[in-house]
Amino acid sequence: MSTYQKLYDHFKKISDLEHVQSIGYWDEASMMPLGGGEARGEALATLGILIHELKTETRVGEWLDRVSSENLTGNEAANTREMARAHREATCLTGTLVGDLKRTSSRCEQAWRQFRADNNWAGMQPLLEEVVHLVREEAAMRADSTGVSAYDAMLDVYEPGMTSEKLDEIFAGLTSFLPGFIDEVIDLQKSSPVIPMGEHFPVEKQRELGLSIMGTLGFDFNHGRLDTSHHPFCGGVPEDVRITTRYFENNFVQSLMGVIHETGHAMYEQGLPGDWLNQPVGSALSAGTHESQSLLMEMQACRSVEFLQFMTPIAQKIFLGGESNDPAWSVDNLHRLYTRVERSFIRVDADEVTYPLHVILRYEIEKELIEGGIGVKDLPEIWDGKMQQYFSLRTRDNYKDGCLQDVHWPSALFGYFPTYSLGAMMAAQLFNAAKLQHPGIPDEIREGNFAPLLNWLRTNVHSKGKFLSSDELMKGATGEPLDAGFFIRHLKQRYLGDG
Amino acid sequence: MSTYQKLYDHFKKISDLEHVQSIGYWDEASMMPLGGGEARGEALATLGILIHELKTETRVGEWLDRVSSENLTGNEAANTREMARAHREATCLTGTLVGDLKRTSSRCEQAWRQFRADNNWAGMQPLLEEVVHLVREEAAMRADSTGVSAYDAMLDVYEPGMTSEKLDEIFAGLTSFLPGFIDEVIDLQKSSPVIPMGEHFPVEKQRELGLSIMGTLGFDFNHGRLDTSHHPFCGGVPEDVRITTRYFENNFVQSLMGVIHETGHAMYEQGLPGDWLNQPVGSALSAGTHESQSLLMEMQACRSVEFLQFMTPIAQKIFLGGESNDPAWSVDNLHRLYTRVERSFIRVDADEVTYPLHVILRYEIEKELIEGGIGVKDLPEIWDGKMQQYFSLRTRDNYKDGCLQDVHWPSALFGYFPTYSLGAMMAAQLFNAAKLQHPGIPDEIREGNFAPLLNWLRTNVHSKGKFLSSDELMKGATGEPLDAGFFIRHLKQRYLGDG
Repeated sequence: MSTYQKLYDHFKKISDLEHVQSIGYWDEASMMPLGGGEARGEALATLGILIHELKTETRVGEWLDRVSSENLTGNEAANTREMARAHREATCLTGTLVGDLKRTSSRCEQAWRQFRADNNWAGMQPLLEEVVHLVREEAAMRADSTGVSAYDAMLDVYEPGMTSEKLDEIFAGLTSFLPGFIDEVIDLQKSSPVIPMGEHFPVEKQRELGLSIMGTLGFDFNHGRLDTSHHPFCGGVPEDVRITTRYFENNFVQSLMGVIHETGHAMYEQGLPGDWLNQPVGSALSAGTHESQSLLMEMQACRSVEFLQFMTPIAQKIFLGGESNDPAWSVDNLHRLYTRVERSFIRVDADEVTYPLHVILRYEIEKELIEGGIGVKDLPEIWDGKMQQYFSLRTRDNYKDGCLQDVHWPSALFGYFPTYSLGAMMAAQLFNAAKLQHPGIPDEIREGNFAPLLNWLRTNVHSKGKFLSSDELMKGATGEPLDAGFFIRHLKQRYLGDG
Repeated sequence: MSTYQKLYDHFKKISDLEHVQSIGYWDEASMMPLGGGEARGEALATLGILIHELKTETRVGEWLDRVSSENLTGNEAANTREMARAHREATCLTGTLVGDLKRTSSRCEQAWRQFRADNNWAGMQPLLEEVVHLVREEAAMRADSTGVSAYDAMLDVYEPGMTSEKLDEIFAGLTSFLPGFIDEVIDLQKSSPVIPMGEHFPVEKQRELGLSIMGTLGFDFNHGRLDTSHHPFCGGVPEDVRITTRYFENNFVQSLMGVIHETGHAMYEQGLPGDWLNQPVGSALSAGTHESQSLLMEMQACRSVEFLQFMTPIAQKIFLGGESNDPAWSVDNLHRLYTRVERSFIRVDADEVTYPLHVILRYEIEKELIEGGIGVKDLPEIWDGKMQQYFSLRTRDNYKDGCLQDVHWPSALFGYFPTYSLGAMMAAQLFNAAKLQHPGIPDEIREGNFAPLLNWLRTNVHSKGKFLSSDELMKGATGEPLDAGFFIRHLKQRYLGDG
């Protein structure tokens, strides 16, 4: 057996175990009763340690050293490169730390659900301190291995090649542009207020609309499903993608766009290269690229007038039983509703204009938290200060709308938040390129025909897996590297009618 | 670290992996879209091989040899005995066979869902042949290790200590008693026909009733849930027990008794000894004992007049919106409905009187199938012949109501069917003992108070885990070993009013 085949079989085994791990996590968030949490935490920790042991086995390092002498195809070489990356990322952490992290973050994440509901910071703080303590260890070990700073080492896990230096530059452009732009948009929107929709929107009907639109976008229900969880996410495996949403009965717009967002993620997974799904090179490129696919659907394609022209009669039929001339239910009003800009507390509910400031706030805080400049106990006060600075809002004593709102930190996800805004920028640039190459896309969206757009994404993004770098992917698809200018031009065009 | 501690940690690791395995299987049957099946089959096969490897590690055998010299408590010694049994049962199979079995039976089980729906025997036959081929290998390896016959070796996996010789004797008593008894009961019941309930029973309301009764029986929803699957089952883990049912909208009685049945299984799991859940001795004693807990609830407790007196007004409220004097909805009529005896095709829908004949039919066939006397291709004809013999019914060309009706064989479960009838006999004997010790139980059931019965089961059955043998358990709980006479007396009393 060739060395490459040994590596292939070994990573196939890891992929199989990651499959059950992924279903275990999905179940924990969407199905599991609270009382099952402790045993699940233990079980997933054990599985996590085992996967980690497989990735770090000495013979994997030896095989990787030896495989370069074999005659590999280009695809095999790319796969080997990603195996080496996975091996390196795992080898730099001790098995004990991996187990402690899984166990502690699983417990913290489960507790977070109740503590957030109860606005209970005092209960959360000690659990989060344990998580941060372990993540600092993780960051230090990763930094030792890669030679970058602690925070950059965490960033690199989710967005290979990204650094806080590059981020500081990109984010500086946004912090200088956005505050004034937000003032201008809010001021302009005052003259065209949204007419409130007074209806009650039963969960079952919202789910029906969500499923219908998922089908329109191209979600393959033979390889995935839609469920409910506290915090929407996309999980499962490429062959069986599990997305979730949550419902508010006085409001269908949030859940619908949540479903569209997760459908964007899911279609990326469903479009990954079929022959390589059980190998490292067959998985998604990076968190930012993933987010570009969800935001392309949610923000670029589905907050457009064209999409709302398609969707409005469907929503009227489901919620009202037939078409309506009620001005609250007009395409214009829905478009105003779906492009309303507002300074608000909750990131996941934020509009695309203020969203980057939510990200920047978290980026600034978590960087300090990982590098030791601040402690968990300082979070509420710092959060409150930055909310004042960026949003003129206060979160004192309101933890559930402040530093308790996100599942990321309780889940030990640090270095992840910036990828949301990288994704927004990629999405603007990719959608612009798709429309340049296929000018019919907006009209097709108006007819509910997403196939041309999805085909373009399948060809240029999804099927690439990890064969290309982010930079190669953007150049291949759009002709140029990532440029935040596309995002800013998109905002100016949609919100001020410029360009 | 003591040798016992090494064994303890090792089996805790196995238990953790079996936790995710169990959730993976539950998900496959209740949540997974069809297209995810192939990848899931691969993933669970890999995990199964891994668990098998852990059980068969050479050092486990060495530890087991050495541990007897340590000063173990009685509980530790019992746990060690069960570790040794798990090690022996795994060691006698090759890793390759375990992987092939998992992969093949997973594919066959998934295909079975469609083939059964389509009445497609031609599609099923080759897949089932692959499974039987592998199970024969399994049986031969197990027989080599234990020195009993191929079929007895399979039986021993689910019901330790049981043999086909003992079964032949028990079943001979039933095949001589039941046919005449069934004639007599059917004849008697002709004079008191069931008044049909004409209502439509929406799934959501059936689910509401099921959840309500689960709560009454004592199911702990903080450690479990109810879902839907093609074939009802009880899965998950003791800390998070997953039961399923299926609904027929023209009939609520089947799904309700299905839910009660699975709740009996689930409460056994929920009542296993809490300090030992992640160890071999902490799990359920045998398949027959498990079935005794489901049948005690379903057949003994909940087809009684007392339970129907409690349940009827609740069902009336849910389905009719309030109490009703409709004679179809009287306790008497429901009792007639719930104790109706009929020769029918489908085992899972059969009444408790004809049920043992369904089991005996399968026992006789699968024994021949494993020992090579017949082949998969012969199944339809043999099934048809035995249906004529025991039920005066024909299943020629009607595979879906014949040999395609059960998930067991496609899932590679051979040697399991007899445990259903062993469970029925244990249930009759245990319920009899509980009532002798607590004569108030029938009146308490009439009030919806299951706590005294459940406490008795917790003390005498659930909390015993595998600390006792079946024989010790029955003697401890009822004062005597298993005696089929209790079951026969129960049937005579309920169906002919004898005794």
